[in-house]
Parts: sequence; C-alpha cells; structure tokens
Amino acid sequence: MKVSIIGASGYTGSELMRILMNHPQVELAHLTARSLAGEIIAEHFPIFTGYLENKTFVEMDLDQIKKDSDVVFICLPHGHSMSMAKELLGSVKVIDMGADFRIKDINTYEKTYQVDQLAPELVDQAVYGLTEFYREDIQNAELIANPGCFSTNALLALMPLVKNNLIDPQSIIFDAKTGISGAGRSANVDNLLAELGNSFKVYNPLGHRHIPEIEQELNFQSSDPTMIQFTPQLLPTERGIYSSIYANASQETSTEALHDLYKDFYAGEKFIHILAPGQFPNLKAVKGSNHCHLQIQFDERTKRILVFSSLDNLMKGASGQAVQNMNLMFNFEESLGLESSGLMP
Amino acid sequence: MKVSIIGASGYTGSELMRILMNHPQVELAHLTARSLAGEIIAEHFPIFTGYLENKTFVEMDLDQIKKDSDVVFICLPHGHSMSMAKELLGSVKVIDMGADFRIKDINTYEKTYQVDQLAPELVDQAVYGLTEFYREDIQNAELIANPGCFSTNALLALMPLVKNNLIDPQSIIFDAKTGISGAGRSANVDNLLAELGNSFKVYNPLGHRHIPEIEQELNFQSSDPTMIQFTPQLLPTERGIYSSIYANASQETSTEALHDLYKDFYAGEKFIHILAPGQFPNLKAVKGSNHCHLQIQFDERTKRILVFSSLDNLMKGASGQAVQNMNLMFNFEESLGLESSGLMP
Amino acid sequence: MKVSIIGASGYTGSELMRILMNHPQVELAHLTARSLAGEIIAEHFPIFTGYLENKTFVEMDLDQIKKDSDVVFICLPHGHSMSMAKELLGSVKVIDMGADFRIKDINTYEKTYQVDQLAPELVDQAVYGLTEFYREDIQNAELIANPGCFSTNALLALMPLVKNNLIDPQSIIFDAKTGISGAGRSANVDNLLAELGNSFKVYNPLGHRHIPEIEQELNFQSSDPTMIQFTPQLLPTERGIYSSIYANASQETSTEALHDLYKDFYAGEKFIHILAPGQFPNLKAVKGSNHCHLQIQFDERTKRILVFSSLDNLMKGASGQAVQNMNLMFNFEESLGLESSGLMP
Amino acid sequence: MKVSIIGASGYTGSELMRILMNHPQVELAHLTARSLAGEIIAEHFPIFTGYLENKTFVEMDLDQIKKDSDVVFICLPHGHSMSMAKELLGSVKVIDMGADFRIKDINTYEKTYQVDQLAPELVDQAVYGLTEFYREDIQNAELIANPGCFSTNALLALMPLVKNNLIDPQSIIFDAKTGISGAGRSANVDNLLAELGNSFKVYNPLGHRHIPEIEQELNFQSSDPTMIQFTPQLLPTERGIYSSIYANASQETSTEALHDLYKDFYAGEKFIHILAPGQFPNLKAVKGSNHCHLQIQFDERTKRILVFSSLDNLMKGASGQAVQNMNLMFNFEESLGLESSGLMP
Repeated sequence: MKVSIIGASGYTGSELMRILMNHPQVELAHLTARSLAGEIIAEHFPIFTGYLENKTFVEMDLDQIKKDSDVVFICLPHGHSMSMAKELLGSVKVIDMGADFRIKDINTYEKTYQVDQLAPELVDQAVYGLTEFYREDIQNAELIANPGCFSTNALLALMPLVKNNLIDPQSIIFDAKTGISGAGRSANVDNLLAELGNSFKVYNPLGHRHIPEIEQELNFQSSDPTMIQFTPQLLPTERGIYSSIYANASQETSTEALHDLYKDFYAGEKFIHILAPGQFPNLKAVKGSNHCHLQIQFDERTKRILVFSSLDNLMKGASGQAVQNMNLMFNFEESLGLESSGLMP
Repeated sequence: MKVSIIGASGYTGSELMRILMNHPQVELAHLTARSLAGEIIAEHFPIFTGYLENKTFVEMDLDQIKKDSDVVFICLPHGHSMSMAKELLGSVKVIDMGADFRIKDINTYEKTYQVDQLAPELVDQAVYGLTEFYREDIQNAELIANPGCFSTNALLALMPLVKNNLIDPQSIIFDAKTGISGAGRSANVDNLLAELGNSFKVYNPLGHRHIPEIEQELNFQSSDPTMIQFTPQLLPTERGIYSSIYANASQETSTEALHDLYKDFYAGEKFIHILAPGQFPNLKAVKGSNHCHLQIQFDERTKRILVFSSLDNLMKGASGQAVQNMNLMFNFEESLGLESSGLMP
Repeated sequence: MKVSIIGASGYTGSELMRILMNHPQVELAHLTARSLAGEIIAEHFPIFTGYLENKTFVEMDLDQIKKDSDVVFICLPHGHSMSMAKELLGSVKVIDMGADFRIKDINTYEKTYQVDQLAPELVDQAVYGLTEFYREDIQNAELIANPGCFSTNALLALMPLVKNNLIDPQSIIFDAKTGISGAGRSANVDNLLAELGNSFKVYNPLGHRHIPEIEQELNFQSSDPTMIQFTPQLLPTERGIYSSIYANASQETSTEALHDLYKDFYAGEKFIHILAPGQFPNLKAVKGSNHCHLQIQFDERTKRILVFSSLDNLMKGASGQAVQNMNLMFNFEESLGLESSGLMP
Repeated sequence: MKVSIIGASGYTGSELMRILMNHPQVELAHLTARSLAGEIIAEHFPIFTGYLENKTFVEMDLDQIKKDSDVVFICLPHGHSMSMAKELLGSVKVIDMGADFRIKDINTYEKTYQVDQLAPELVDQAVYGLTEFYREDIQNAELIANPGCFSTNALLALMPLVKNNLIDPQSIIFDAKTGISGAGRSANVDNLLAELGNSFKVYNPLGHRHIPEIEQELNFQSSDPTMIQFTPQLLPTERGIYSSIYANASQETSTEALHDLYKDFYAGEKFIHILAPGQFPNLKAVKGSNHCHLQIQFDERTKRILVFSSLDNLMKGASGQAVQNMNLMFNFEESLGLESSGLMP
C-alpha cells in the first residue's frame, strides 16, 4: 500500500515516517515539505539513517499524490486541510492530523479556530478517529479527523465515567501536562532548551482549542451537558502527556468498583491499560509507544473521582493513533507497526 | 551570631549552609551529620569549595551545641525534634524544619505521622513559621515550626481567597508538582536519574501528610471548614514547586478584582509577587530564590477561580523561609542573606 | 526458542526483555531476580504493561533453567558468571553480559577485576561478541563474552584506523560520555536525579576496567601495540554513549579518503553508519536502537584523525548486540527484533 | 556608579543585569534592546520580578548613554563593537563582551571573523580581560576585551602548564562541553528543547573561532608556539562549560607535584579552585557562580597530563568575569556582587 504525507517535516510527520518505514504493508510515496524540498530526510532527521537513506523531501503535487497513493496523511496547521481534502477524496483516503474536521458544529469550529469552514459538506462525512470509540465507522471511512493529543488523553480517561453517569458533568477538571513537542517544530525563542530546560509552566489556561472538541465528544455520550476546566501545562521533556483529572462523584462508589468498570469498558483493548491499584502512570513508560496508561481512584474523604492518564502525544495522541486508524481502514491487524513498548530507563 | 544545624547533610541542611555562609550576621558553629562526621563538607558538597573549605561535619553534642549557639536549625525526619527541642530550649532558640510542631491538634499529629507527640507542652508555644502571616509571633518566638514546602505553596496562594470568603471552602483542588529534592537525599532506586529522568508521575494522591497542615491553617482564617484535594506529583528536575489550584467562586468576580485583592493583600511583601495579567509563573524563575510567584484568574465560563503558585521548595518552601524567620527572631532585616533572584537561563 | 535471563531486574536484563518480548522466535522462560522473586514484572517495570502482564520474577534454579532454555543470558556483576557458565554449558548456550570472559589473558583479568578466574578452561572457548568482527565465530559459539558498552563504542570507531595502520597506536585518546544507566540500577545517593540532574562529570579517568578489553582487541589487529587514554564521563540523561576520539595520523590523509575507507570497511553492515560529511552524531538519534553512528575527520592543521561515535549503551552497547549475537547463534536474520530506529524528538 | 548595557536582552546581557541589580555600588542606567524597546524587563525575564519591576528596555542612544554612564557593557555579536567603542571611549569606559578586540593580530581577526577591523587603533589599547592574568592592566584600562567562554576555561586550565614548559605545546587537546546558552538567544529550530533535550553532539570540531584567541594567549606565555585541538560539544542543559584537556608531559612528573604547582600558581585567587585529589569537577557545582573548579592528574601509564576544568559560561565565562573586571577598573573589592556559590541540588 502506498502512503503519502503532506507536511512531513514537522513532528507528527516525522513520527508517521518513523512508524511507517517499518510497517510491513506500507511503502512511502510522497513526503512533502515545502521549505526542505530536495533535502535528504536522513540528514535532517538522523533517526532515519539506514532507513530512508536516500529519500528526499519533495514539493507537494496533489495530482501526482493522487496517482501514487492509497492514503494521504495531512500534517498541516488547521485551516489548510479543508480544500486539500476536497481535492484528494475520491482518489485516495485521507487522514487529517489537524483540527479542520474534528468539530461537527460549524459555528463552533469557526469561532474556535478563527477561520471559515471551507468544506462544510465533508464535516459530517469525516469520522472522528478516536479508535476505541468509532472503530466501525473508521473501518468504512474515507476521511478521518484524527483527534487532538489532549483530547485523546481526556476522552480515554473520562468516557467510562461519563457514559455511566458516574460524575457531575459540570465538575470536570482536566489538569494536563505535555512534553514540548506538542508545541510543534518552529523557530521560537520561548521553546529553546535554554528557556524551557528545567522549567514548568501553564499556558493559555482558560481558552485552549481542545475544549470544544473534548466537550463535543463527551456530550455525545452524556445525558447532561459537560463542561471541562482544562489547564494545559508544559513539561521540560520532549514528549508525553500526563493528566490528573478530577470530578465530583454523582454517587458513593469505590476504587475497586471503578477499576472493575474500567477493566470491563476497555476489555480486549490492546492499547488501553488500567494499572494495578497503587501503581500510578509514569510518563516515561508510554514514550515511543501507542499505549495509554490509566489509574482511577475514589477519594472517600472528598467524594471525588480522580483519573490519571498518560500517553505519548505523538503516538496515541497523534501519529500512532492515525496509523491505528489506517490499519482499520485497510483491514490490517489494528496494531500492525505499533507493537513497540515504551523505553526505560 | 552563632548558628548550628543538626542534620546538615540533607538538602534542607545544605541549603541552610548555602544561605548562611554568606549571611553577614551569621557564624556557622556545629554542623552535624552522623554518618559523615569528620568529612570535609566541601568535598561532599562541591558548591562549598572556597567557602567552608576546611570545615567538617561533626557528631551531634547537644550540650556543646547549647553553649556554642544562639539558634539551632533541626533538619531531621519527623519524630526526632520533639525531645531535642525540649533539651535545647531555654539555652537557644530552635527552628524545626520538620513536622513535629506544625500540627496543633495532638491526635491529628499522631494519626498523621504515626508517632507519639513527646512534647505536647511545646506545641502551643511553637509558632508556625509562615512568615507573612505570623510575623509578630515569629519575632518573639523561641521555637518555630517551619512550614512544609507544599503547605507554604498552597497557603500563600489560597489565603487571600479564604480570608475573604471568595470561594467554596470544600471545593479546593491543589494540583502540585515538585522537583525531586523534595524526596530527600537518601539512597532509593526509585529516585535515580535513570528512573526519574524525563518522567512525570503522581504519588500518594489521597493521603499526603501536608493535608492536615494546610487545612489547619486555612481553617484558622475561614468562616467555614475547608477541605482540600491535594495531588502531589514529581517533576523531572531538581527543585521547585508549581501548583495549579482550583476552587469554585462563591460569587461572581473578575480577574481584575482578584488581582487588586491579591496586590493589596501582599502589599509591601518582598517575596510574594502577583504577576502581570497574562504572565504565568515559570518554575525556573524562582529556583534558588526565596520568592513566590502567583497568578490568579477567574474563569467566567466555569465560575472557578484558578491560582498558579510557584516557589523553590528548598528556599521559600524550607530553608529560605527558615532564614527569613531567623532574621525576624534576631531583629535583622527580614531579607538579609535572601537577596538572590532565580537563575535563567 | 526458549530464553532465560539470570539477573533480569537490572537495566541490561530489562532491556533484553524489552527486545525479546517482541522477538518473533523467542519465548521467555525463566526471568530471575533474587530480591524481587514473586513480583509481577510489569508492576515493577511499567513499560511491560500489556506485554508480560502476569509474568513474575523468579528465583534462580539452574537445573530447571537448563531444562527449560535454549540460551541463557547472564546479567550479573563480574565474578558471578564463571562458575555459572561452567554449570550451564553443555545443556544450553550462554551469553554473558558481564566481563568474566572478555579478557583472554588471565593475569590481566584477575588484576583488572580483582577476582580469581574460576573457569580458565572456558576463556579461550568464549567468543568475544563484537558482532561485526567475529561473526563467523559467533555463529558457532556456545559461550559469548558480550563486549562492554564503552569497548563497543571505541572498537567500532577505531578498528578501521588500527587495521590499516593509519594512526600512531600510542596516541589514541578516547573521550567518552555515557548516560547514567551505565552505572546500573542500585540505590546510590550519587546517582539520584537530585544529584545528577543537569550535572556533567568525569569519573575514574585513569583506570577504567574497559581499557584492557579495548587494547586487547585493538592489539589483535594492530601491527604495533596500542595504548588508549580513556576518560569516562557522565551525561545527565538516561542512556547513550557518545565519544570523541583523537589519534595522530601516521601519514597525510583526507576526510574524503577516510570516509571511503570506513564506508568500505562497514559496507553491508545494517547497524553501522558513516554519516554524511558535515553531519555529526547526535546521541538521541540512536537511543533505543541498535545502531552506531560514526563521523570521521582529518584535521589538516593538527594532523590528527578525529572519530565521533555514538550508540545506545543498553542496545548496541549491551543487550541489543547480545540479541544480534543470539540471532547469529540460532541462524535467525541477524537484525530480527532489532529493527527499531531511535526516537526523536 | 552608573552602568549601561547595550544589547541587554540576550543571555550575557540578562546575566549582567542579574549580577548588577544586587551590586551595592551600581545603578543601572540604559538597558538597550532594539526589538524589545518599551517592554517591561521583568515581564520578559521573570527572574527580575521584584527587582527591576518597572524598568523597560530602551532604544540605544549613544549620546545619552555617554552622558548617563560611567561604564558601558556591549553585548552584541562580533562586528558591532568596533565603531561603537570608538564613539564611547573618552566619555566612558567600555567592556566589550564580544570578540572584536580580543585578537591582537588584525589579519587573524579579520580572517577568523570574516569582518574588517574598523578600529585597529584600539586593538592594542584594549586589555584582554582574563582577570587573573591581566589584573594590573585591567585596573588601568579604558577598554576591556572580555574573553570568550571557552577561552577562559582553556586558559585557566592550561596556563600553569604552559608557563612552566611542562607540556609539549603542540599536543594539547581541548575536549569541551557547553550548556546551550552558549549558542545565544535567537529563534533556531536546532536549539529547541524538542531537538536538544537529552541530546549530546559535537559541532564545528575543527574550526571554532576561539582557537586563535586561546593560542594567542598561550603563545604569550610559551617559549614554543602552541597548537590546540579544540572540540566544542553541546550538553543538554542550560549553562556551564566542562572540559577534559590532554597534553603530553614534557618530562616525568606526578599528580602531587602538579597539585602543588597549581595551588601555588593560583594562591590567593578567590575564584580559582584546585579540587582535592580524587574529587572531580561537577558542572552543576559552579552554575550561577563565578568560580572555576580544576582537577589535574598525571597519567603514569600514558605520560599525559589531564586537566578537568569547569565554570559557568555566563559567569566566569562572560558576565561574571566582566563584573570582576569592572570592579577592578573602579577600585571596588574584586569579588563585589560575585559572592554566590553554585546551586545544588
């Protein structure tokens, strides 16, 4: 199968290449990067030494891409995928790594991202690529709106509670910490190692753009509307998301009961793991892998439910989940190419 | 003035030495460390090269310490200071860096720390060393119970809200992240760089021992009892505490109004800073300093008040505040020896 | 094929498990760890969640291991493998991760490691597992002495020069920097994150035990005896070795000529890469992979040859190379289970 | 005394502000930064919160600076200070943090830095600000060429050997590792935390611009011309330089004899420390301080002398040494404002 990546020189693009170059069913076709066209990829990203050795970044040529590809991953900032997807669909399947098709309500999309929705006819057709929840739709999809990294982290952690009405849906607090690759690969003094090394800081605590995406998906499952308090924070490390999630229990429960619920809910899932009682997620344990580690606790004193959720923002939070979706769309084993564990020490 | 430190080879002890060796009014007397007695301090802690060059750690000799000291800092795990303080008081002033005298309710202390209170007669005499709130008591104190690092962080952030009844006192969530020096200086596989480097993880999320300390101090100021949800988490860096604090506003308010309130509340305080709107604390900015940086926001959507609070766990969270208290007890300028800013980059 | 690991709870042991649990030809049998016997491995090493889920560490039972295994990896400190290998050989093949069989000269071994050589009859039989240089011997070996991490790094970098008499063999300087996992997984105050975070330091610069091992292997290829100056240094990161190697050129040469030589020398090698001129190894590019990245330069001004060499101390420097050797010993594809690239960002 | 800083928004500029804001004899006048003119410094560099609270960056106005200053620090890239110094001298003293006046040979300067020397008449007048070696000249200087960070590190380590003819001057290898702040504060993808975190790499190993500066100063003291092999490498941390230096001993010596020599050579120096035998510099021990830590060893086996040298690139390697020079120029205590130790943990 032939795969092209538009915008291959950013972090989600390079992560897709890292996964797909070892995927037994995939041949990489066009790997576009406007500013680096003609450069040898392995000299730019040294992890590809010995893998993509002589392959170069190329200019984007949509006509050629349509001819040479079965599926195209679009790794561009929001606003760029709408017209591109219109042109590609019909010829190839499309997995959009950006936000253009995640929000079903067009007003909400336009208000949140401050751009016009140029492909409203595709919004309903697009399948939200949260694999564990839309598996069947994904198998038949032509266009995937791959979820945001924070959204994946929040939704995997909260869905069992929301679907079962176990929490006050207005009480959710999502305190999330991300590695710096979430900020993308652009020259910015604020993201220098000299600035961020050993730092920790909150950014944009009230208005992060993943809020409507998370609330949309929770609301699809919740009997009452949800409202999340979302605080994104930057960790001084390259990758990973770790969140501490708080919600008021709607009824007395127990840690044991919640464990049973989550284990049932995610039974058979290869990438979602409920850790043993007393074991808490460790960010590093999921780095480089497509796994999500969860721990759940009921605090008898405060009557709150706490969920701790950890995943790799570039894997299950972006490119790993996208490949998981691709596998479904092409009837491959869902975990193909995604077998690696995290790396410790 | 002569100062002795009991337990000088841990991180709060070495931080006291770092501050006091440059303090213009202080001469260091006994620096005890049982397991390192006789060793040259500067060979063990290389930052002291050129400062304490020939000074060695010594065995603890309380009689001699009483003769040779005006004030003694006790840097030992909880449970050890009670009898020691009894013996020292009368001859010298005592600043206890541990938890033995922080909790006024003896049952609560004994239940929390799983030891007997051996000096109940000293508990009321001990002044809780949260400098900005007990300044006058500290000036006259013989015995200081120096606050816990998390407690200082939480209390400085929450006091203006609690004292002014601006939040639901049962709704407080204290999501705190600490550098690893908070775990102390003992050989432990879990705290190796190979284990913790690039990691992030929660530990003991429901039962941290600073909860009763924080609630005690908030309750002294609150018309209704407070209950805090406290989640301690480990950052992959050496020092610093950063917390995101959430509480339901008891009435409509605004970020501006809250800024005014905090600026009034902490007017004239040299070490407490309300950052400009839009500027968020950065952990690194306070490292090595005695400052606490605060940012406050009202979320109109969720009706919550958010406070972000950052300080150095070894400075304002421990040894820096202890020296601030010592300065008050001996009528020195309160900031003497504590003038340094953080270090960036 | 059945594989057992003796001493599976250290870093080389856990790295072997990480590789082998996804190896298509391997079934893990005994995973011994004295102090952790009975504990679930995945609760101790969270990267194994979802992989070794219910497997536990076990006590070592050599008789049972002989029955249940085709090959045994011994991951113990030097001094322990000699008698163990004697007992195991005949029944199973053995790959010793330690130093016991690396040094052919028994006096040198005993002097260097301060223990008696208890199995002198096995020393000659043991094949030094530097795969690229002893491939045929390894295919027929019953006992592998897997090379030290620094030794592998130095030898891969220097062999083309030494074999071709391009340098003064007495002029070699090996300035090597290693991630902290090289120090092993034992409780030690010096290796705490609070101590090592953001640090850099040399240790034991004149007498590292890998010196005789490196010189032995160089001398096998050199017409004149070699002498290396070896300076080991600790990087504040978990894994990886990076070295800068200096030697006086024995004759005028050029960077281009050296590149040609190295490319020839390592032609067809899957794991050894000569980077393009102007591109220098980046430690991170090889982390988690079995690759070694090399850059070579001739300095016309100083007439020195410089080699920069980077690999992952736990992979090509230990467990990865050991699996590469195991693959050869059992006629599998040499790179089986070792296909992963490094991880960036 | 009034001090102005031209180019105050880079790392050497901010470090000067950090030192000077607490310097008892200094009042900060103009703090220029073209692109940030009008911005509040403390909102840009949060460590200045509570110190420079309302001070803003300003545009550069040389006439006004001459009127308002006693000394001006120029923190600009090379090439900019030559004409500026010409205009300022006569009215004020100048300390140039860049390279424009470091190289006495004008051809060498122009070839190395690829710019014309616009103020050749000032080159001889400029005093090279390596404090411990040019103390008397500095006291009388109008113009200081403050040394490069690597140069300071190398020269402090090598001078005792070179001056005493203890090494072959053609055999010097300077393997140096620097924190990333040495690369300056400009937007550059290569210096992002996502790129550099946990990395280590060599850059520009044959042609670093500090080579002629180091050789010039060594040659002033050496009977025979020196040639250094200089390999700069990037550590994944914010600040600090650590070097391992190798040279062939010109005669048999001993570690003890070398220690005696260095201790004599640097007797009375407040910022240069010869560590005890067996104790090696630790990068972190000097961070934030003006100290340089040295260890020296004679390797009996290889007949080489090894020197390990560590300092903070922004302090003794730049701004700290510049203030040390300023103190001399204005007859203040040489260590005024520079009393801080490093920070550990």
